[in-house]
Amino acid sequence: MSKSLPKIGLLGGGQLGRMLLQAAIDLDLPIACLDPDPEASCHTLTTQFTQGSFQDFDTVYHFGKQFDLISIEIEHVNIEALEQLEAEGIKVYPQPHLLRMIQDKRIQKTFFQTHGFPTADFRLIESSAEIIANEDFLPAFQKLGKGGYDGKGVQYIGSAADIAKGFDAPGLLEKAIDFDKELAVIVARNPQGEIKAFPAVEMVFHPVQNLVEFLVSPAAISPEIEKEAEDIAVRLIDQMGLVGVLAVEMFLTKDGQILINEVAPRPHNSGHQTIRANDTSQYEQHLRAITGMPLGDTKAHSFSGMLNLLGADGFTGPAKYEGLDTILGISGVHPFLYGKKITKPYRKMGHITLLGESREEIEQKAEQVKQSIRVIA
Amino acid sequence: MSKSLPKIGLLGGGQLGRMLLQAAIDLDLPIACLDPDPEASCHTLTTQFTQGSFQDFDTVYHFGKQFDLISIEIEHVNIEALEQLEAEGIKVYPQPHLLRMIQDKRIQKTFFQTHGFPTADFRLIESSAEIIANEDFLPAFQKLGKGGYDGKGVQYIGSAADIAKGFDAPGLLEKAIDFDKELAVIVARNPQGEIKAFPAVEMVFHPVQNLVEFLVSPAAISPEIEKEAEDIAVRLIDQMGLVGVLAVEMFLTKDGQILINEVAPRPHNSGHQTIRANDTSQYEQHLRAITGMPLGDTKAHSFSGMLNLLGADGFTGPAKYEGLDTILGISGVHPFLYGKKITKPYRKMGHITLLGESREEIEQKAEQVKQSIRVIA
Repeated sequence: MSKSLPKIGLLGGGQLGRMLLQAAIDLDLPIACLDPDPEASCHTLTTQFTQGSFQDFDTVYHFGKQFDLISIEIEHVNIEALEQLEAEGIKVYPQPHLLRMIQDKRIQKTFFQTHGFPTADFRLIESSAEIIANEDFLPAFQKLGKGGYDGKGVQYIGSAADIAKGFDAPGLLEKAIDFDKELAVIVARNPQGEIKAFPAVEMVFHPVQNLVEFLVSPAAISPEIEKEAEDIAVRLIDQMGLVGVLAVEMFLTKDGQILINEVAPRPHNSGHQTIRANDTSQYEQHLRAITGMPLGDTKAHSFSGMLNLLGADGFTGPAKYEGLDTILGISGVHPFLYGKKITKPYRKMGHITLLGESREEIEQKAEQVKQSIRVIA
Repeated sequence: MSKSLPKIGLLGGGQLGRMLLQAAIDLDLPIACLDPDPEASCHTLTTQFTQGSFQDFDTVYHFGKQFDLISIEIEHVNIEALEQLEAEGIKVYPQPHLLRMIQDKRIQKTFFQTHGFPTADFRLIESSAEIIANEDFLPAFQKLGKGGYDGKGVQYIGSAADIAKGFDAPGLLEKAIDFDKELAVIVARNPQGEIKAFPAVEMVFHPVQNLVEFLVSPAAISPEIEKEAEDIAVRLIDQMGLVGVLAVEMFLTKDGQILINEVAPRPHNSGHQTIRANDTSQYEQHLRAITGMPLGDTKAHSFSGMLNLLGADGFTGPAKYEGLDTILGISGVHPFLYGKKITKPYRKMGHITLLGESREEIEQKAEQVKQSIRVIA
């Protein structure tokens, strides 16, 4: 009856780990971290910080052996060590075989296809030479099977003229989608099989530059599309049997079809605003899921937005936050700084959550915030 | 223009400090703590934990000299050391002379009276012998001037027959108030003089036993009473010139009058629910205030409640949380555990926040939670 809380070890100690550790304070769940960077975002937030590679078998195995439960905040970790720990009776959530599937976009996409989940058409290829043989399939994105992360490992191949830009490694060609919106649904599942999805959020693009400008929640979509997006996420995590949170990134095509783009088996950039705008944050939800607790209510109580705070171009060195007072003076604006000492151009240094009572209010605040804050050195 | 964040030292490392440190992660404000208990709630949340007495001049002085800014999470600290630090140019918020005033209920009550703030009638007395000379003033509460805390140092003197129960020390007699509700307003002020109040909350009493059962937000009061309660809190912090948050506890009498009961110059038990139910929490607000940042929006986005989680009677030893899974299964219920290893009867071990869409929903959830959870050993 009385709950004895597990000892938890986390692979990775970056900003996602930082927010996970912050949420874990509520439940008095001390979490140890493993990260190669001795000044990783988590290092001041745990009394059990280990410096080391989460991609090295021995390091992961020996780190993991100390705990009842292992989780991750980055999926590019040593799977073999996690499988060994699992075989020795330690709980590893999300499960290693699912990390193995997600780590390779070829297997991930094939999984969607095999199990009848909607996704953009694709063809597996082994090298850049094979792009030529698939000229009929262009325009497409070439994606590396392994090692892609945070926008890396993806190349647009518009026509045969772009073939020289291609990667010469195993990957896939994915049909370029003419999409109306890019959506994300974060969904969680605990070992008992309880599943809850957060409302879909939407990436807002700059009308001219076509760059992701900021995230807004909830997405401006019909109740039918909302239901379909949540249903896809729920069916997917159920089919996978994953324990933890799963971020499902999707395209809404111009003809109203939802296609899964890709998934991340951990708290995700598209869920930062849940800390401020939902009853339960994605971080608390992940902790509830992996420890086998009932999942929390995912309801959004406000409109919200999220802007990444990137290092300004041209500045490298100890970070300074120019305009912090200005944005703190805007009602409903809450910065979250990742505690990184050194800024570099485009380095993710933090994010800013916006709360409001309408989408228009969120859009206005996003514009104000963008004009006001810079990370310089 | 660019903000350089101050080095902060905190006197006290209990649960209020714990929630303050948790909020400080957002703004990347590392906070050092001083507490006599080596296992205080904060000790795992800061890399700069100092074990020592916050009531000892030398300890406070030497601890404080390392920082740009000192704050407190308990008001029973060594004021002389804080005054010395302030004289040497270190910022101390809330200011030492205000802590001195609040530490002594005699000076605190006299301050309210002198500045025209409504408060229950009182008479200063020097010893229990003086109670007899004030028999005409009974029934009353005798309150110790100094050293009262968390319900200690208060004695009900109903009639001459109770005089033997009185304290033989300087204090005051305060007219027993026949009140309808007990309210609290948390208000904050920064050094620039910006002031913001949180909506009034209400302590709900057990209908038979007349004990505080739980807190509910917002209070069920008319807009006029709400405005008056907030106005009193705003005028009081302005009159005091206090920097930080101030919790103002008030009585609403049966004839609709508001009387100030007492104040606490720090985050307070009556503001825990702001973490989950308001745009800005009282902890973030305190950090914004003492660091000179603009104050955050205090709006409540949900109805909420807060129950203290006390150690069950008859259990002393390593704490176990019976029924934690049960309460986590109730929508909108979020526990906050203080990380205390040892439970004792009635020790504050944590609290539970309830979110809902009506007061009735909060009351129902409070009942369910009370039936379900116990801290045992």
